[in-house]
Amino acid sequence: MTASRPATVAHILAQNASAYPDRIALIDGDIRLTWTDLASRVDRLAGALRQRGVSRGDRILWLGQNSFRVYELLCVAAKLGAMVCPANWRWSAAEIEFAVDDFDPRVVFWQSEEIGDVIAQVPGRTERLWIRHDADPGGDGYERLVTGGNPPTDLPEVSSDDALLVIYTAAIDGRPGGSMLSHTNLITTALTTSWAYSVSAQTVFLNAGPMFHIGNWQIVGLPTFVMGGTNVILRRPDPSAVLDALASQKCTSAFLMPATIAEVAVLQRKQARDLSAFRANAAFQLWQGLVELDDVPATRISGGIGYGQTEMSGLNVLPAFGADGVGNAGRPAPGLTVALLDENGVPVRDGETGEICVRGGIVHLGYWNRRETNAYRFRHGWWHTTDLGRWESDGSLTFIGTMTRMIKSGAENIFPAEVEAALESHPAVREAAIIGVPNPRLLQDVKAIVALHEGTELTQEALIEHCKAKIASFKKPKSIEFVERLPRHGPDKDYDTLDDIFGGGGYPGGVNLGGGAGHEVKRNVS
Amino acid sequence: MTASRPATVAHILAQNASAYPDRIALIDGDIRLTWTDLASRVDRLAGALRQRGVSRGDRILWLGQNSFRVYELLCVAAKLGAMVCPANWRWSAAEIEFAVDDFDPRVVFWQSEEIGDVIAQVPGRTERLWIRHDADPGGDGYERLVTGGNPPTDLPEVSSDDALLVIYTAAIDGRPGGSMLSHTNLITTALTTSWAYSVSAQTVFLNAGPMFHIGNWQIVGLPTFVMGGTNVILRRPDPSAVLDALASQKCTSAFLMPATIAEVAVLQRKQARDLSAFRANAAFQLWQGLVELDDVPATRISGGIGYGQTEMSGLNVLPAFGADGVGNAGRPAPGLTVALLDENGVPVRDGETGEICVRGGIVHLGYWNRRETNAYRFRHGWWHTTDLGRWESDGSLTFIGTMTRMIKSGAENIFPAEVEAALESHPAVREAAIIGVPNPRLLQDVKAIVALHEGTELTQEALIEHCKAKIASFKKPKSIEFVERLPRHGPDKDYDTLDDIFGGGGYPGGVNLGGGAGHEVKRNVS
Repeated sequence: MTASRPATVAHILAQNASAYPDRIALIDGDIRLTWTDLASRVDRLAGALRQRGVSRGDRILWLGQNSFRVYELLCVAAKLGAMVCPANWRWSAAEIEFAVDDFDPRVVFWQSEEIGDVIAQVPGRTERLWIRHDADPGGDGYERLVTGGNPPTDLPEVSSDDALLVIYTAAIDGRPGGSMLSHTNLITTALTTSWAYSVSAQTVFLNAGPMFHIGNWQIVGLPTFVMGGTNVILRRPDPSAVLDALASQKCTSAFLMPATIAEVAVLQRKQARDLSAFRANAAFQLWQGLVELDDVPATRISGGIGYGQTEMSGLNVLPAFGADGVGNAGRPAPGLTVALLDENGVPVRDGETGEICVRGGIVHLGYWNRRETNAYRFRHGWWHTTDLGRWESDGSLTFIGTMTRMIKSGAENIFPAEVEAALESHPAVREAAIIGVPNPRLLQDVKAIVALHEGTELTQEALIEHCKAKIASFKKPKSIEFVERLPRHGPDKDYDTLDDIFGGGGYPGGVNLGGGAGHEVKRNVS
Repeated sequence: MTASRPATVAHILAQNASAYPDRIALIDGDIRLTWTDLASRVDRLAGALRQRGVSRGDRILWLGQNSFRVYELLCVAAKLGAMVCPANWRWSAAEIEFAVDDFDPRVVFWQSEEIGDVIAQVPGRTERLWIRHDADPGGDGYERLVTGGNPPTDLPEVSSDDALLVIYTAAIDGRPGGSMLSHTNLITTALTTSWAYSVSAQTVFLNAGPMFHIGNWQIVGLPTFVMGGTNVILRRPDPSAVLDALASQKCTSAFLMPATIAEVAVLQRKQARDLSAFRANAAFQLWQGLVELDDVPATRISGGIGYGQTEMSGLNVLPAFGADGVGNAGRPAPGLTVALLDENGVPVRDGETGEICVRGGIVHLGYWNRRETNAYRFRHGWWHTTDLGRWESDGSLTFIGTMTRMIKSGAENIFPAEVEAALESHPAVREAAIIGVPNPRLLQDVKAIVALHEGTELTQEALIEHCKAKIASFKKPKSIEFVERLPRHGPDKDYDTLDDIFGGGGYPGGVNLGGGAGHEVKRNVS
């Protein structure tokens, strides 16, 4: 009785082609596809790839920038039971080579413009089917496949639990891993995100974020696709192209970084384009006076940063759920279960710090081709995020930081993020970083580097006492160095430099848990 | 890797107890349970029932009126992998006996107040565990089970695809059937309904509709439960109790029939209670000037009636989806796929009439204990609703009527609802009913009984010509009788009386397809 099975992305496409036949599904430059057009092109491309042997479980790699064709390939893969991975188009030839070897795709779609020279350096190109997506329509590329294809007649039975979208996330033991997201993962997150961001068939979303990260898909490319709205695709987020697309396509929302918003806002102050359709869901202050404020119900918007990672289909702990939480991350989306576990898989008590572990329909299937890592990260029946959190007494979650940096002191594991949070809770402390310094007996000692707010004073002793009231005594810093400001790599504290300056080292080997993964989703979205 | 599995209702309860520990989950008279209270009571009751042998797949029958205990039993069944069925408390002893035999429950919870006398007439009460739910807390009933229970230690693995809630719907071959709704069914419809009705953790929903129908569960008891809001339960919808609950509990929404709304509105005009929290989602005109209008985004509210049945988890085709449809039913909820099929399982063309067939995560598992019916209704990989629909050119759906009344003329099956829709599309026709009259050669002829708008005139011939332009010629009435008005049972056309007056009969046997099922969900909800 497969009629009771949850929908696949192919079912969503078919239903939207039925429900919204003449409305626009995709816009990319001069290309405008109705839902009917999209369904027809997907049918023909699926037939062409089926004819070339693409079967259930096969992989399709996209080596290109943002394109409407990535949405098409998502639908094609959904019909064929295959997976599609949009690779980072800024990768070097060596990184591409690694991904090709690792992902082992049957078909590679590649782009000549901007990145063709790098791709040309990748060896072994004759072993697979390489198809250029931006060739002339008459040339031997993507468009000729579409034109020449016939709808497939021998489609496999595809399950909503099959992997569909694969996103490479941060390094595991030095190697990026491809997080496999199923139909159910993507559709479930689309439903709850549609609720949180008020996405509907009237949404016109500007895909200005990179398709090789989860952020643009979740907020809100996939919800827009699922709800029958319009996705507008930008190859890359050049400010003038963004402003032009927002105005000319009457976009209602967009995935934009704060730096891009600021640049677009400068342009808009000069050009005064008509942005009356646009609603700012976040980064209000950057848009002030330029665009409409949000029309999402007021309870859905509040402070906080949310929490998520690619491996849980994106930002699925949100202040929007519950609306009045103390914790900076908010509450889990409905259907997501979160536990904070200690090293033995036992839940920590409220107020204590534990690893954020998750379970539910938005948790990914694991990394492609990483059997051991998957078994470890799924231990005790939970996906272990390698991030630290704390329950507040009102039931909301505070995201503290990653566990991928760890200090070993005696038998104890100490996570810098937790100690830094304790230090930074002191009103005089502006910022703090924790490093481990070698100790011949205990392996390492905890050392803090702290910058105070201007005009404040604090002794090492008083600050250590403050920490003892917040965290277990063995975690408190043995010594504190005061500095004017912490060195940083962009927004991140630069621990390597701190280790160099203050004698850090002796970190335990083999404890890189592969986390910090997917933190790229923690971005402002407008 | 069960961590990737969709949530069960037990997971939702556990997560809400974590996220909303001190907020109120359930209110029933003087009883107010926080999410923590609820989780604790459910744990103990689950332990008590586990100890009494209730296992995965077992059935629990509720013979009582609305109660917070039905929500508790839903959670208990979710933990144990069991099913719970709230029976219609207006059933006769014979109907209860049928349901007990058919559903074969391990435990029956029953109510003494109002319905104890009827229940006492049900035979065979010693063969199962019968527990009175409204006994004194000190007595041998529900509350003592809760008090005496210990959290179970040997819970089975429960799948989100397991049956959980069973609702008896209209007759199949004369017998009601228990529609089995899974965890995934209930949670999926809760998510899309939360979107459509803007349900959140701030929702306070008055459960004034009967728990033995899907309507009150879907709109919006389950969404309120899933989103972490508050469910207020009324034993029965007495107007003064409704008004008191709306005001004293600061309800934001309620499941109310138009007749009840009208009575409550009369009371409110006298009493002028504070209903400032309340938002009317429907039946605006009845509430005019008395309560706040809806604060759901405007695009979610429009004309139309929606379409659904218990077997598809309620009203899951809604004008809210798509927002501007021509068809009276609107568009399918995201994740629901709808096809209109002919007798051979082939999709009909746009504008033609076909059986509404559905597929997706909200389609029920089938009827309990009805193997043959299930196989038939799930044929061709679709759930067959036994209702007729038509696609409009904009992709929206028009619900035409049930197929459970059928006329046989020669080899052709003719559904009165389709012919009536053709007749009623004539501007002079106010209402029309179709019956079959015996014909020795063809089995039956199609006969129409028609009431015209006052002051209009129309010949039989002209109206038959009108039909020929709308539907296949063999479906057109052979004869038409004009009357002042059609006889009705409440809102429904009274076909038995029409058969008696105009010589109807000769209907084909064994074609009752068990439909019309669940049309009780098509009610106004405020």
